[in-house]
Amino acid sequence: MIGRLNHVAIVVPDLAAASALYSTGLGATVSAPVDLPEHGVTTVFVMLPNTKIELLHPLGENSPIAGFLAKNPAGGMHHVCYEVTDILAARDHLKAQGARVLGDGEPKIGAHGLPVLFLHPKDFCGTLVELEQVAA
Amino acid sequence: MIGRLNHVAIVVPDLAAASALYSTGLGATVSAPVDLPEHGVTTVFVMLPNTKIELLHPLGENSPIAGFLAKNPAGGMHHVCYEVTDILAARDHLKAQGARVLGDGEPKIGAHGLPVLFLHPKDFCGTLVELEQVAA
Repeated sequence: MIGRLNHVAIVVPDLAAASALYSTGLGATVSAPVDLPEHGVTTVFVMLPNTKIELLHPLGENSPIAGFLAKNPAGGMHHVCYEVTDILAARDHLKAQGARVLGDGEPKIGAHGLPVLFLHPKDFCGTLVELEQVAA
Repeated sequence: MIGRLNHVAIVVPDLAAASALYSTGLGATVSAPVDLPEHGVTTVFVMLPNTKIELLHPLGENSPIAGFLAKNPAGGMHHVCYEVTDILAARDHLKAQGARVLGDGEPKIGAHGLPVLFLHPKDFCGTLVELEQVAA
């Protein structure tokens, strides 16, 4: 069912410092910061040959990652995102096995303009899991 | 400098349950458990098309992940591993920029039989980073 690891998301307290760390320190190619006000985050993409790291920082009030950063002031790994080709089939399969989908259970349009769902970390070994629907 | 994301490691409290979650629940291909007594872990590999997830469970006394599991009884994301082609050059570059290498600073042979180093999470946005040397 799941395909590629689309990204690993890391919440960071200072986006400029984190960008420098990944570019100058680790020698990776990083994007310019992108504000996503409808998602309450600013994102920097670290482009790796096989996947990407998304550095996230809260944007605006009521950012969904503000609480995470308050609990983890140094930052930390926030979620992993797996690709699926049929997000509704994936959701229904997982729900039938007792996994909990966050929110109202309906896919939303995520940071990449594609349908996404989040699965409860308590059902996935303490790991917040995002599913993103990609073309088959 | 860094290349592919080699793996994301997730510490889990119950390896059989986590394997079933990733195979039956998420529909991924998972390996049989592999005991690595010299590393103090038992590992299950979740094979994705572009990278892998390593599910880790403590093995034996003094497992290096026992403390993590005690703090995170439901499990959680433990580290990310980036590939490099020259681990000593990567280490020296990072140390020159103030990053701290865990342990004595010398590469050890990791779970895949290749030289690895771990970088201090406080220097990497709260994320434990493993570097693994692969063939150029």
